[in-house]
Amino acid sequence: MKITSHNASHNSLFQNIERVRRRRGKVRERNITLAHGSGGKAMQDLIDDIFVDTFDNPILSQLEDQASFNIASLMEHGDKLALTTDSYVVDPLFFPGSDIGELAINGTVNDLAVSGAKPLYLTCSVILEEGFSVETLRRVATSMKSAAKKAGVQIVTGDTKVVHRGAADKLFINTTGIGIIRPDVCISANNIQPGDAVIINGELGNHGAAILIARGELALETDIESDCQPLHDLVKTILDICPEVRAMRDATRGGLATVVNEFALSSNVGIRLKEECIPVCEEVKGVCEILGLDPLYLANEGKLVVVVGSKNAETVLAAMHSHPFGKNARIIGEVISSPTGVVLLKTSFGSDRILDMLVGEQLPRIC
Amino acid sequence: MKITSHNASHNSLFQNIERVRRRRGKVRERNITLAHGSGGKAMQDLIDDIFVDTFDNPILSQLEDQASFNIASLMEHGDKLALTTDSYVVDPLFFPGSDIGELAINGTVNDLAVSGAKPLYLTCSVILEEGFSVETLRRVATSMKSAAKKAGVQIVTGDTKVVHRGAADKLFINTTGIGIIRPDVCISANNIQPGDAVIINGELGNHGAAILIARGELALETDIESDCQPLHDLVKTILDICPEVRAMRDATRGGLATVVNEFALSSNVGIRLKEECIPVCEEVKGVCEILGLDPLYLANEGKLVVVVGSKNAETVLAAMHSHPFGKNARIIGEVISSPTGVVLLKTSFGSDRILDMLVGEQLPRIC
Repeated sequence: MKITSHNASHNSLFQNIERVRRRRGKVRERNITLAHGSGGKAMQDLIDDIFVDTFDNPILSQLEDQASFNIASLMEHGDKLALTTDSYVVDPLFFPGSDIGELAINGTVNDLAVSGAKPLYLTCSVILEEGFSVETLRRVATSMKSAAKKAGVQIVTGDTKVVHRGAADKLFINTTGIGIIRPDVCISANNIQPGDAVIINGELGNHGAAILIARGELALETDIESDCQPLHDLVKTILDICPEVRAMRDATRGGLATVVNEFALSSNVGIRLKEECIPVCEEVKGVCEILGLDPLYLANEGKLVVVVGSKNAETVLAAMHSHPFGKNARIIGEVISSPTGVVLLKTSFGSDRILDMLVGEQLPRIC
Repeated sequence: MKITSHNASHNSLFQNIERVRRRRGKVRERNITLAHGSGGKAMQDLIDDIFVDTFDNPILSQLEDQASFNIASLMEHGDKLALTTDSYVVDPLFFPGSDIGELAINGTVNDLAVSGAKPLYLTCSVILEEGFSVETLRRVATSMKSAAKKAGVQIVTGDTKVVHRGAADKLFINTTGIGIIRPDVCISANNIQPGDAVIINGELGNHGAAILIARGELALETDIESDCQPLHDLVKTILDICPEVRAMRDATRGGLATVVNEFALSSNVGIRLKEECIPVCEEVKGVCEILGLDPLYLANEGKLVVVVGSKNAETVLAAMHSHPFGKNARIIGEVISSPTGVVLLKTSFGSDRILDMLVGEQLPRIC
């Protein structure tokens, strides 16, 4: 009697084991539930199905709670490591020319690139609102994969959190990246000297204007697309010809005006830009005119401001022109010894006006 | 006439320069506005005042868009780099025993530590809801600083985003960390072998229960506090005596049950835990009984599951007992060759039941 009972119990245990094994698989739900952030089975399925399968690389596939890799073999004597982080909260998630996924890759790749680093590895941490579409998440992950491939980086570890409906707006993504800076490069906002030239790689304001239009709150139709693009290769082109670049920063939130103000403050110099040299396309000018916005404060996602010694300016400009993401590069101004910490804009009327940092908020959630 | 006008214009320009310079300073607002995420002046003040002043380290103070540092000088031949990321969405932000700031440091430190890495550098990216209290943010940053100091890590770069009221719940924090793994350590969920011992460093479920009580939705009063603590030093103690640890993972979301299931699946082994050996304090047992929760699925923030070869089990246990965060360590089970991919729990009645992965969601936003 006792033995029979024991066998029965064992049989049912084995049946349960089979049942548990069979349950492991793909995401079947159409919408994200709180269970997808629980740490349990639903989350594991989501991670496997959406992220691991899409990002597809051997480090991530190990599914440890951290990536580990040999970095020394990628470094030479004197190399430094660069580390940068950004959370992306752009609204809407998809907009002309790009989407939050591509943005989350290029934004972090560019923050690495402008330090002179070769971007290598990225992390991806998502905060999902309960009810978010699984298919949309898959679309975002696919976009991230494609952007990572273009930028030559691998997404090697990640995290998934789910919050109640209404506790977050759809989807936020954090990416953090590491890269390697070669020893002969020392780029810093503190290095700028009077006489240096200020160069931009193309037209300003397209990303900010595209987001604004995409929100659909304005009855405007334009062909403006976000300039979202990875800048690592353009930076490489610049550094190959001129490793002694003084300062470089991508003009994202706060636009060109914010970057040049940061430069002027950090190096305690003045900067004078020439309005007539700053490239802004006609459509962006039109949108700004209608809405009373200044394109110099609009966000970009593929524009960098480069400061080089005047003797290198033409060489760097020519190198930038040879690259598809720098073909509209222009020298837009020069560094002056005074007034310090201030940016002046020589207007087309010939007078100087102060180009201050952005005060207030032009346009929230553009990245 | 022309000269006078020119002078007047210049005088007013210089007055404007002084006015612009004077405006630079501290955060004066009591609540976060969209301008604090604009990339402009308000954001710079927020970053300077709250984060740079509080976190206070030379890499962060450079205020570049990325941290850069010499990692090679910290590494020896054969060392690997560990990289991990986590977003923290815990609700409420403050709870008995800890808060989101300390959690955001310890959580990421622990994910590095359980790979055997010495944690070194962290990033900090915050998503703020418009209207969030500046003082509360300062309190969280101070808590992060204090936790970082205890864990021996530096917060070297960050990011600040602000979303409209209602587009996020108060505050989310992402931290991403890097650390160095010594060459003689190779910890992986794939390494586990039949006969290995499974060890836990103390009582389970306190963090999850503390959060649940702190939400105040239940008319329960207890003394339960979160176990939030950094595990890097305990891990060092373990590895100093036994570098050949097979697998180690902190039992956060999904609790002990989830970690051991991940182990069983990754190494294609079975694991049998003994219920009577698993430490759970009386108060947590009480809360679980009242609410119908299982403490084996409750989150922890200072508990790690260690798997070692049976011959090392007692040595490792003794080493853990010598450390304040391991003094209640217990051997709680063993690895078996079959059934593979499944965890069995030997109940106090002497029968085996399957301890499955968490299906569904016990308790959202516990980390």
